[in-house]
Amino acid sequence: MEPTSNVYIRKGAQHRVESGHPWLYQTEVDKIEGDFSPGDIVDVYNHRRRFVGRGYINPRSQILVRFLTREQEPIDRAFFKRRIEAAWQYRQRFLDEPEYCRLIFGEADFLPALIVDKFGDYLVVQTLALGIDRFKETIVDILDELLCPAGIYERNDVPVRELEGLDQRKGYLKGQFPTLIQVRENGLPFYADIENGQKTGFFYDQRENRRFLRHIAGGAEVLDCFCHTGSFAVHAAVYGAKRVQAIDISDLAIELARKNAALNGVADRCSFEVANAFDVLRELSDERRQFDIVILDPPAFTKSRGTIESAARGYKEINLRGLKLVRPGGFLITCSCSYHMDRELFKAIVVDAARDTRRTIREVEYRTQAKDHPILPAAPETHYLKFLVLQVL
Amino acid sequence: MEPTSNVYIRKGAQHRVESGHPWLYQTEVDKIEGDFSPGDIVDVYNHRRRFVGRGYINPRSQILVRFLTREQEPIDRAFFKRRIEAAWQYRQRFLDEPEYCRLIFGEADFLPALIVDKFGDYLVVQTLALGIDRFKETIVDILDELLCPAGIYERNDVPVRELEGLDQRKGYLKGQFPTLIQVRENGLPFYADIENGQKTGFFYDQRENRRFLRHIAGGAEVLDCFCHTGSFAVHAAVYGAKRVQAIDISDLAIELARKNAALNGVADRCSFEVANAFDVLRELSDERRQFDIVILDPPAFTKSRGTIESAARGYKEINLRGLKLVRPGGFLITCSCSYHMDRELFKAIVVDAARDTRRTIREVEYRTQAKDHPILPAAPETHYLKFLVLQVL
Repeated sequence: MEPTSNVYIRKGAQHRVESGHPWLYQTEVDKIEGDFSPGDIVDVYNHRRRFVGRGYINPRSQILVRFLTREQEPIDRAFFKRRIEAAWQYRQRFLDEPEYCRLIFGEADFLPALIVDKFGDYLVVQTLALGIDRFKETIVDILDELLCPAGIYERNDVPVRELEGLDQRKGYLKGQFPTLIQVRENGLPFYADIENGQKTGFFYDQRENRRFLRHIAGGAEVLDCFCHTGSFAVHAAVYGAKRVQAIDISDLAIELARKNAALNGVADRCSFEVANAFDVLRELSDERRQFDIVILDPPAFTKSRGTIESAARGYKEINLRGLKLVRPGGFLITCSCSYHMDRELFKAIVVDAARDTRRTIREVEYRTQAKDHPILPAAPETHYLKFLVLQVL
Repeated sequence: MEPTSNVYIRKGAQHRVESGHPWLYQTEVDKIEGDFSPGDIVDVYNHRRRFVGRGYINPRSQILVRFLTREQEPIDRAFFKRRIEAAWQYRQRFLDEPEYCRLIFGEADFLPALIVDKFGDYLVVQTLALGIDRFKETIVDILDELLCPAGIYERNDVPVRELEGLDQRKGYLKGQFPTLIQVRENGLPFYADIENGQKTGFFYDQRENRRFLRHIAGGAEVLDCFCHTGSFAVHAAVYGAKRVQAIDISDLAIELARKNAALNGVADRCSFEVANAFDVLRELSDERRQFDIVILDPPAFTKSRGTIESAARGYKEINLRGLKLVRPGGFLITCSCSYHMDRELFKAIVVDAARDTRRTIREVEYRTQAKDHPILPAAPETHYLKFLVLQVL
């Protein structure tokens, strides 16, 4: 597809995109020369008429242009093939089990708004913006050629698509197959419900972090709040935990978590309960219960900058309660998956909570998302996960 | 040893130490009740006369008190034994090769100003403040009892001791043995010169980071600037690099680096040169040379907050030159071991350098020091190492 128009950045607004950020906002644009339809490929220039990059445009979105490349190269099948090959090579290089991975992580793989997860022989695809949705057939065709999957499923049942003028939909793109499939994480089998599970059905982004439990789980009593489909809980049990108590608010998630524990042969040491984690944390701390490991991996408390203060209060509360439940010398594993919750702020909240509980804490590990979710240093939005392990003395 | 006096923090200054920071500064003190000699154990109270902690005092130092504990417990042999046992247990839990580790990392092991490195059968000890130096015999005795080392060496030839009113010295504390000894890092043998090498003779703090090279070194041409005794260079070669060019300003370091390459059977693929890294980076970039991997692990460019701006310029310059030398798709490994160079600032400097060179960068990994150098979240000084791996496109 050839560029249909030229977009000029207004003077003073070029810095962010010239530093490598993949989004050009409406408010940063001086003028557009040429006619275009929403979703078209356009070229972007700075106010000195120097070429900045090429991307797709959608005037319905606050993000007017998302960059696909910084070169004046054709955006065609060969382009997408190079990008997808590079992403697959990256996963093969950095992951121990590349068959199970996030294969394309949108902006961080220079394919904005495209998500592809690989679940062994199956792929799940999301095209979350108009400009990339137009190339869906091409992309699916390349994925089929490169990876020869048994099946491909579309999980485009995402409200954000409506902001782009796209419908919500899900279904088969290649093949017909049962949608409860098995994936592997750190060598352990898990069920993923790719039809009805959250997002694409499984979260690979904590893979390396879950493996951390092998150092500390032996003989431990573990509390896993916000356990979702049970991956942390099952890892802890497989790595030798004496007992794992896990809770989540979703009965669908708990049902799958129970299946995952059984699949790994650790159902006898895991108990799963549908409950509100805030309530359970309060009850357990009123009962003065103690655990060797407490895991807090809540859903994002904030999805916008505006609600960051109330999110901070939420994180403070659960970390305060979590810290109290850790036996002296034990460990708190605390996470945040909201990119608005800055890494340093998150740590400061936890330090603050430790002070309020009069516990001394030591940082054992502070990691981020797994390597199949790369980060663009120029785009803080691509860096969202915080995984902090503290020893609580 | 019993506390000889009570130190009262002035109102408003209690927050930092009450949050867990292990240092009380002269300027934060309201008054001291009771007589004491420099190096004595004292109790610290806040302005409400609530007990804050117990530590050792030295009025010659800006840091008046360093906390040993937050409990009113005796500071005796049993105390030090508990602390050292806990540190050893921590290393055994989190390290693959605990025989080779930093056994005690001062403040972060709640034994301020005490450093103990374990080099297999040998230990190297530093007591960097008067209050801990007083317990040197007790500490050596406990180390001997717990670990039965073949020898213990003292590396107290450190200028900072003079600020504490202590002499500089080095020598044997137990046994007599050759001081060029072999250690292991990620299973590879290295020589450490515990008598004349920098600090205690070997840096374990990049252990996990060096291992990262296994993902990318295969078939690579590698440039290792500031190579010191060659650990990154040798790791790269052992992990399959085609050729490693390594430079350092110290001929002592280069001599040992050559020995280390030979010891690992990779001398034929490594070249070591005594040179100024800034000059070499400039020359290579003038010659338009390209490498698959460029490693920048310079000594601290700043040891105080005052010189941070010139340090930032230094980091910017080497990263700019380093980025230019990376072949498209290759990797820049860039480090800073100065705690004054904040993690986010360091990344911002590298992003800035990438922008100036018009290269797109992707963050593959951003780690800190190895786990035998734990971090106190309440004491930013304990968090000093930045290890950033970028893919340069």
